[in-house]
Amino acid sequence: MKGLTEHEIIRILTNQFSGKRGIPLGFDDDVSAIPLSSKTWIIVKTDMLVRSTDVPPGMTLQEAGRKAVVATVSDFAAKGVQPRALMVSLGLPAPATKTMVHTITRGLHLAAREYKCKVIGGDTNQADDLVIDIAGIGFASPKTIVRRNGARPGDIIAITGPFGKTSAGLRILLSKEKKDLSKYPSLVRAVRQPKARLTEGITLARSHAATSSIDSSDGLASSLLQIAQSSRVGIGLYEIPIAADVRTFAKEHRLSALELALYGGEEYELVVTIKPERFYDLKKRVPSLTKIGIVEKESFGVIARLDGKRIPIEHRGWEHFT
Amino acid sequence: MKGLTEHEIIRILTNQFSGKRGIPLGFDDDVSAIPLSSKTWIIVKTDMLVRSTDVPPGMTLQEAGRKAVVATVSDFAAKGVQPRALMVSLGLPAPATKTMVHTITRGLHLAAREYKCKVIGGDTNQADDLVIDIAGIGFASPKTIVRRNGARPGDIIAITGPFGKTSAGLRILLSKEKKDLSKYPSLVRAVRQPKARLTEGITLARSHAATSSIDSSDGLASSLLQIAQSSRVGIGLYEIPIAADVRTFAKEHRLSALELALYGGEEYELVVTIKPERFYDLKKRVPSLTKIGIVEKESFGVIARLDGKRIPIEHRGWEHFT
Repeated sequence: MKGLTEHEIIRILTNQFSGKRGIPLGFDDDVSAIPLSSKTWIIVKTDMLVRSTDVPPGMTLQEAGRKAVVATVSDFAAKGVQPRALMVSLGLPAPATKTMVHTITRGLHLAAREYKCKVIGGDTNQADDLVIDIAGIGFASPKTIVRRNGARPGDIIAITGPFGKTSAGLRILLSKEKKDLSKYPSLVRAVRQPKARLTEGITLARSHAATSSIDSSDGLASSLLQIAQSSRVGIGLYEIPIAADVRTFAKEHRLSALELALYGGEEYELVVTIKPERFYDLKKRVPSLTKIGIVEKESFGVIARLDGKRIPIEHRGWEHFT
Repeated sequence: MKGLTEHEIIRILTNQFSGKRGIPLGFDDDVSAIPLSSKTWIIVKTDMLVRSTDVPPGMTLQEAGRKAVVATVSDFAAKGVQPRALMVSLGLPAPATKTMVHTITRGLHLAAREYKCKVIGGDTNQADDLVIDIAGIGFASPKTIVRRNGARPGDIIAITGPFGKTSAGLRILLSKEKKDLSKYPSLVRAVRQPKARLTEGITLARSHAATSSIDSSDGLASSLLQIAQSSRVGIGLYEIPIAADVRTFAKEHRLSALELALYGGEEYELVVTIKPERFYDLKKRVPSLTKIGIVEKESFGVIARLDGKRIPIEHRGWEHFT
């Protein structure tokens, strides 16, 4: 029996809960919102980390704690919102040891400090596997939030960094061959110590030059397709920046670097669309911002035109590694 | 190797995160808070339900979804705060089927309607076991919130209903003998369809007559001990209301009804302390309110004096049923 994908599950939740009585954002976007006044919304996001699917071998419990926070912060980054507070729900397999709890807590603490938010409470429970669910809470003006559905034909598609590192790094961590661990430290680090692009996201949102934004935790291809779908536009790509180490790794292992870049996940870069006249101005403030394509009419789909080849981008999401 | 208890884990989290820079409430209380202004706090609570420990045999997935919401709402009830919005994090074992997701979602929806809050978003992930983490968000005036630490000697200890039903009901659901299922429907219902005392909690908070409050999800004994510890008071009990069906069930199975009532859990009644001069007035508005004892000086501990016997209340928490 084939199970539902995460997208299909979210679809069911969306149909049940969204659009009924003026819920802004919601399941369809990176974060949810509670209107407080016409000028302020409370922004909320939960993201659940599960060891069996999100913590590969070689990742420490401290790194797992940190990653759980990064995943939630990354959704705030995509909307340009500073998270203020975090709630932690810990599901711990028995017996939960002091060292285990201290180590996870240390990771949570480091990440909270890194992204300038406070852990204000939480819950704990016994579970079969380690589960860390992080709820983030922040505030934003509804005018500043960059949604997924604002891309318009002519806008520039840009990303905050090259892709492919987490797919390659994950392969290294899962492989029995250990030599790549020391040969490709940047790839391993991308998996074990991911970064959320919070500063970049906030700058982009404040500029009012970004028309749509999403974090790439589901992979570059999936992120582009979601912007296209939400905004009812097409997307043409003329470049896909792949990290240099990913190219070397792909060559050595006879893999497609392009596949690693497009269909990876948990990369936590931002994928944004930007008003074309504002791009160079914005690039000065967010130097990592890299053009990869242009927003087109809906009928064109999401297509990469690379080295004279036309490559349709497929809806293959990031499948967790189990 | 003996693992940490939930209380010990919370203690580690509290030490790491609390009290550092003016975090109100927090791990030490039923809910956490983010001050928005001097008059308004955002109230947040997460509660994680895990199938292996929180969903006994005989409980449907719809009931599990509903219970996950009830657990979070009950913490809001204890503080007298109406939850406004809920975030849902779903960890689903593979393969996740449509029926499974629809059924859980239906339970979430029913509970959200019951307690007048909206599900505004969430996350989903593959997990080894079903995990439903519910984050609740609401607003309150800091003056209205009933903390755990406000009990003063002379206050009346009261509860919103008799105890023991969930411990007895859980024994019935876990037992191989099936006849009790039809013989004691109220006990089984207490486990499968728990209620949060939200209306009661809000009335108590608005009255400003309650000096401390906690929900009894960890059991009556544990709740009393936590109020005593937080408020630095002693507690003397002269009555422990036990549901009539629990007495019959205990007699039939040669169990101590008192033990079932004191050391059960997930009962979701409120345990509150009330200014003595306000009790009868409040009782008119919350008819289920029942006096069980009196707040004493700290040095007296938590002691029940029943039928001439002196029974010290122990710190035996609700152990989940695995």
